[in-house]
Formats: sequence, structure tokens, C-alpha cells
Amino acid sequence: MAADRKSAPLRIGLAGIGTVGAGVIEVLRENADIISKHCPRPILVTAVSARDRGRDRGIDLSGIAWVDDAAALAARDDVDVVVEVIGGSEGKAKEVVEKAIAAGKHVVTANKALLAHHGTALALAAEEAEVALAYEAAVAGGIPVIKAMREGLAANRITRVYGILNGTCNYILTQMRETGREFADVLEEAQKLGYAEADPSFDVDGIDAAHKLSILTSVAFGCAVDFAGVRISGIRNVSAMDIAYAEELGFRIKLLGLARQTPGGIEQRVHACMVPAASTIAKVDGVYNAVVTSGNFVGENIAIGRGAGRGPTASAVVADLMDIARDRILPAFSAPAATLARAVQAPVGQRVGSYYLRLMVVDKPGVIAEIAGVMRDENVSLESMIQRGRSPDEPVPLVFTTHETTEAAIARVAARLDEIKSVLEPAHLLPIETLE
Amino acid sequence: MAADRKSAPLRIGLAGIGTVGAGVIEVLRENADIISKHCPRPILVTAVSARDRGRDRGIDLSGIAWVDDAAALAARDDVDVVVEVIGGSEGKAKEVVEKAIAAGKHVVTANKALLAHHGTALALAAEEAEVALAYEAAVAGGIPVIKAMREGLAANRITRVYGILNGTCNYILTQMRETGREFADVLEEAQKLGYAEADPSFDVDGIDAAHKLSILTSVAFGCAVDFAGVRISGIRNVSAMDIAYAEELGFRIKLLGLARQTPGGIEQRVHACMVPAASTIAKVDGVYNAVVTSGNFVGENIAIGRGAGRGPTASAVVADLMDIARDRILPAFSAPAATLARAVQAPVGQRVGSYYLRLMVVDKPGVIAEIAGVMRDENVSLESMIQRGRSPDEPVPLVFTTHETTEAAIARVAARLDEIKSVLEPAHLLPIETLE
Repeated sequence: MAADRKSAPLRIGLAGIGTVGAGVIEVLRENADIISKHCPRPILVTAVSARDRGRDRGIDLSGIAWVDDAAALAARDDVDVVVEVIGGSEGKAKEVVEKAIAAGKHVVTANKALLAHHGTALALAAEEAEVALAYEAAVAGGIPVIKAMREGLAANRITRVYGILNGTCNYILTQMRETGREFADVLEEAQKLGYAEADPSFDVDGIDAAHKLSILTSVAFGCAVDFAGVRISGIRNVSAMDIAYAEELGFRIKLLGLARQTPGGIEQRVHACMVPAASTIAKVDGVYNAVVTSGNFVGENIAIGRGAGRGPTASAVVADLMDIARDRILPAFSAPAATLARAVQAPVGQRVGSYYLRLMVVDKPGVIAEIAGVMRDENVSLESMIQRGRSPDEPVPLVFTTHETTEAAIARVAARLDEIKSVLEPAHLLPIETLE
Repeated sequence: MAADRKSAPLRIGLAGIGTVGAGVIEVLRENADIISKHCPRPILVTAVSARDRGRDRGIDLSGIAWVDDAAALAARDDVDVVVEVIGGSEGKAKEVVEKAIAAGKHVVTANKALLAHHGTALALAAEEAEVALAYEAAVAGGIPVIKAMREGLAANRITRVYGILNGTCNYILTQMRETGREFADVLEEAQKLGYAEADPSFDVDGIDAAHKLSILTSVAFGCAVDFAGVRISGIRNVSAMDIAYAEELGFRIKLLGLARQTPGGIEQRVHACMVPAASTIAKVDGVYNAVVTSGNFVGENIAIGRGAGRGPTASAVVADLMDIARDRILPAFSAPAATLARAVQAPVGQRVGSYYLRLMVVDKPGVIAEIAGVMRDENVSLESMIQRGRSPDEPVPLVFTTHETTEAAIARVAARLDEIKSVLEPAHLLPIETLE
């Protein structure tokens, strides 16, 4: 075997034949000539497993062994690599990956939830077993961001990484901006079009983006994957009105995942925020993802592409397989897993930056003075104020942007404003990311 | 030696200590901790060579051997990799690289001219000698585009690659647009600021971009590097007036390098052209580079970053060194060099697309009819026409955009228009790239 290894086929056990799994088979077949040009070893799917054997997947599975229990792929002699595209942080996906590693098989996975929760432990196990744990497809789909950061930009001290990591949210926010419609309305349409799941919470509440961010953070800063350290909020509270005000103020609203090194530790945040309308990231629309990496020598690198879907995700899975076929195996999170320490997380409330704050108030004399007084008391300095139209004694929006302040201070402002009688709703608060 | 190889230092002989060479030393020193985290072998510069030993480069070279003749680096026992950052397609740079390969040393180079002219031969020699020929820094500076295409997107059939490959041109075009000034004026300023060379022709005539494009073409399509197959024009003929009209028509003017697979062969072009103002590439301004790659499964991938300068270029050189230190050595142009055939180049004149055409004409009755008649005769269909203001019997600009036509047809139109007495200058012609 060892002697033939450079030309022997790399044999794949495919756990999951949904959209991505079927895509992997399709890429391997349709681009076999291209792949063989780059890669001395053929890549063959020898065994597959999925829940429902009877389902028509539009893919010819003849000649490929069918395994009812995906975990059994790990034990097969005709499998060198287990590709896990089942999904989910626990259950079968986790079992398959753990068993594969234990059996000395390489693993390629597109499963961000699994890595966000168990990435460090799995990386340790993989390195002990001297097998690959590859997951390019787990973050930003078809964009080779893991490879770029782990290899292409590896000579740099990474200071910050941020991006649009969830295509569903970006699609919804783009639609809201383009049509002026509200979140619930656009979400419903996205669900009908298949851009959002029936249960959309993983996407719209920022959890999926946070899974991906925690992985990026680990690769960028060489620390353990710390999903619990991500502060997460989603886009449910973004209203059409805020999007319109953003436009007026020279911003766009995006759901960003952002990790950076601060004096107090590593800050990991996923939230809707305002970004300058002229920035590259502001113009990444629809289902596209983007990742911006800053390194101390290279400066800023931006990668944009499709973050999900059959083709892009399968493209990333097969690229990982080609790396394995070429014996290009690296520690999963850049540094050897044994050196991945849990990083100090920046304390909550320490973000320093500007904020957008929209209040619904009763339009009567003295309201602005009262609000301004609260800001003054908390040392929050106003940068701009917009009050459109007048409707005496009616609810009207009042929009403020602040100069740099702390998250804690703006939270105190919001709490105190909530106690003012003329303020009718809790403050709508969005961080402004200047991205400088 | 073999037993120690996994932890023994990788020893570098540095040929050239200009901006990039000094940057390489700086990155290796300043980021030594980061590099050692990723890389089991330390990377040490053991010997350097440059023309002028006396020059102060702001870099401490103590403890590093000085070699007067860079080619002698290849013969040294204390050198595993020769880093060539001398530049130029012939002479010393070529000699150093050839001797290094012949002596069984790995080569890392930032030299696009060398690879554009001798890339295939050097790749063959390197593969025979079983050494690396790595050149991430040669194309798009700090952006890891070679790695992305050769590895990250390797599962795809690449259909097109294009980009902004020359920061000097992009800076000049950006300045022209922002200030309304003419080319010569902005070039002079760029030279004063150090953004353009004293002899700017390599940059502004498109040669540097063509060097890079020919390399990208080889990696993208798995063919021999064919610099002679690139059709090249630069930006000297772009006028402030064309830039203003572009804006009015919803375009921006960029110098693009573009390679794609057409039914008639591979098309490689470097030219100033109009791109939709709303496209991502249109908004890549100043000294930034961008590369857009289309693959049959991944779709479009865009990478943006600094395409030149000390830090970004050194970052790419050191990434290549880290790959070598980790034994990650691949054929230089994706496919093994022996399989790199010269691709059929698409015949000249076969581009199909729209064009922008500006004429300076004497403003008198019948001119437009005469011009339209020529277009009709050549089967070129007009899409729009702009004639601003009236100045009877004075020279005025007349701007047309066409529907899809062929390069040959529009060239015939231009030649015939040149014979019309009221047409005062040769037609100013720019392709419109819709990038669809």
C-alpha cells in the first residue's frame, strides 16, 4: 500500500447525500479531468450513507456501497477519508467524525456547528491520530478563506477579521433595503424561495454566523475555538425605518461577525451594525459572503464569493480532498492543537465606538433637551440628530448618532431613556463600525 | 540531515535587498513568534547579496553572510532556498534562479517578468530537480491569488479570470476620475509620490499587468505561460473626457487583465475598458489590486488587497517560504510542467462585445448621419449617442456606445470614420466589459 500511495485512489466515504453531498459527487465526476491534472491520485467515492435510501437525489449511486449507519463508514477498509455533510453539532455528525478520527481516517467536514462546539477537541484527536481535519466549506462556503488565512497570510500577525458570514441574513437585509419592506415580510418570502429555513433562527439570530466566526477567530489568533465567547445578536430587530435612516446617514446595515485583538483580550461579536456606505463590505449584497482580514504586513485582504449552496460548498469540500490527496495536511486551526489555549475574551461592555440610536417619542417641546441631558450625564457625545417632520403630540422617530463611547455607557443611556415618559419604545441601538 | 529535517532551520539566501528584500528580513524578524507557531522549522536568512554593499537599508545584516555575486548564493551549503527579488526577465535574476534550481535549491521569486518570459522552462527545471518554484508575490502582491486558484479553487474548471493587476495604473485612473485631471499631469504627480517609476512604460503601457496575466492564465487553464499571446494596450490614451463620459454612461474606466476560454482558444487581453459602475471591480480604487476568478462550481470569487509595496510583497514571499518549510511543494503552474502545452490563442479581432467610441467632429449638419451610415454598413448597431451642447462649426465630442459586435467590425468602423473630413481625430475606442 505505502509504495502505491502516491498514485492509489483516495477513497471517500460520504456521510450525508443532501445538497452538498450530491454536489461533491457531481464535482468529482464532472471535473474529473481537471482534478486529475492537479492531483496525482484519483478521488473516488466508495461508500455513502444517508437516512433515506429510497429518495431520488438525481445522482447515480451505482457502484458505490450503501451504508445505513453513517458511523459505519469509519470502520470500512475501502475508505481513506470520511466526508461529513450531515450537519449539527451533536448526534450522528459528531459520532461519525469522532469514529473516523479514531479509526485513523481523514475527515473533511462542512459542519460549522460541530467545529464551533467541539473544534479544539476534534483537532487534538486528529493530530494525535495523524489525520487531517479539514473544513474549508464550513466558513464562507466557496471562498477559500481558511486556506488564505492559514497559509496565504500566515506570515502576518492578524489584528482583525470580520465579514458577512451568513447569506440568508445578507439576502434579507439587501431585500429590505431595496424594497423598503419589513423583516417579517421579507423573511417569509425568503422562506418561500428556499433562501431561509422553515425554522430561521440559526440564521436570523446570528448563531450560524457566530459558529463561523468562532472558527475564523481560532485560525486568526491561534487560540482554542470559543463559541461561548461570541456575543451574538441577530437581525430580527432591524426595521425598515433603521435601514432608511442608515442610508440617509451614509451607512448600510449588515450582519457582521467581527473578531479582533484588543488590549483586554479577544473580542468576538456577531451583530447587525452600520458600516460606511462607501466601504467594500457595504456593497456585498444578496447571498454573497465576504471576509476581510487585516495583517500587520499585508494590510487588508478582502475575499468575496458565494457563501453557501451546492456548487460553492462542494467546491470547497473537494479542494480539501485534493489537499489530502497531495499529502498537504496541516494542523486544523493553524497552530498545533496542543498549543491552542483558551484566549482571554474581552470583557463585555468594553467595545469603544460610535452608535446609532433611534427613539420613538411623543413630539412635544422639551423631549430633545431631556434626552440630550441623559447623554450628557453619561458622557456620551452627540454627533448628529435627525428629526423629520413634525406631528405635535404624535409618536415620531428621533435619530441620534454618537461620537466614540463605550458599550457600557450607551447601555446606561438606553436604560435611562427607557424611563422617560415621552419615550415610547426601548431605544433601537446599532453599533457603527467605521472599519478603520 | 534527513532526520533533523522536520525541525532544522530552513536557510534562505536572499538575492536583492531593495524594498522587498528588506521587507522579507523584517517580516521574518518581527513575526518570528507567529511564524514559529505555524511552522515547525525556523526560517533564517543566512546569506544576502545586493549590488551596493555600502548602502544603508535600515536593516541589521550582522550575522548574515554577504555575497557579492548573487549567483553565488546557489552554490552555498548554508542555503536551502534562494529568494530572488532582483527583478527583470533576463540578466542576473534569471541567472540566479537557474543556478539555484540546478544546484537543487528551492526558489521563491517575486519576479513576474522572469516568469512571464521563462516560466514554463523554469517550472520544468524545478520539477526535474524536485525543488519548489514559488511566486505568490509576483501576482497581485499580498493577495494570495496563486494559492487560491491552484489549491482553494482547484476543483473547478476555471472559465475566466480577470483583474486589476497594476496598482500604478489604477492609482492614476482613480486620481484622474476624482480630480478631472489629464493623464500626463497625474502621472507626473504619481512619479513625485513614488507611485510610478521614472520610466513608467512597464506600468502605464500595460506590460507589467500582462506579465501577471500570463502567469494567471497558465495557472487557471493549465497551459504554458504565453506572454506573447497577450494583447496589450495601456492607459496613455485615456483622457479626462473619456472618464467623464464613462461616469455619465454608468461605467468606470479600469485597466483590466482578462483571460478566458473561448470557442476559438484562450483570449488574453490587457487594456483600459469600461466596467459597470455598480460592479465590485469598478470600486477597487487607488493602489489596490483585485482578481476575479470564475469556476464552474464555485461561481465568482473576488480577492482584493494591496498589489505592491514592501509589506504585502514580503508577506507573500514569506508565505511561500512557510509552505516550503512545511514541505508543501506543488507544481508551479498547477499541473505538472511537462503537461503544460502551449494553448491555442483566440484569433485577433474575435472579441465579441460592446464598445465606447468617442469622436471629435466639426459640429455641422449631416455629420451624425454620415457616421451612422458607416456603422450601418459595417453592421454595428448603436446603443446610445451623446452630443452635449452645440458649437456650430467648432470641434465637439460625439460619443457612441454600440451593441454587441466584433473587434474586427469596430476596427473597420474606426478606420472608415478616420477618412471622414469632419472627423478630426482618430476614434477614441474603449471596449465595454459587462463582466457577465
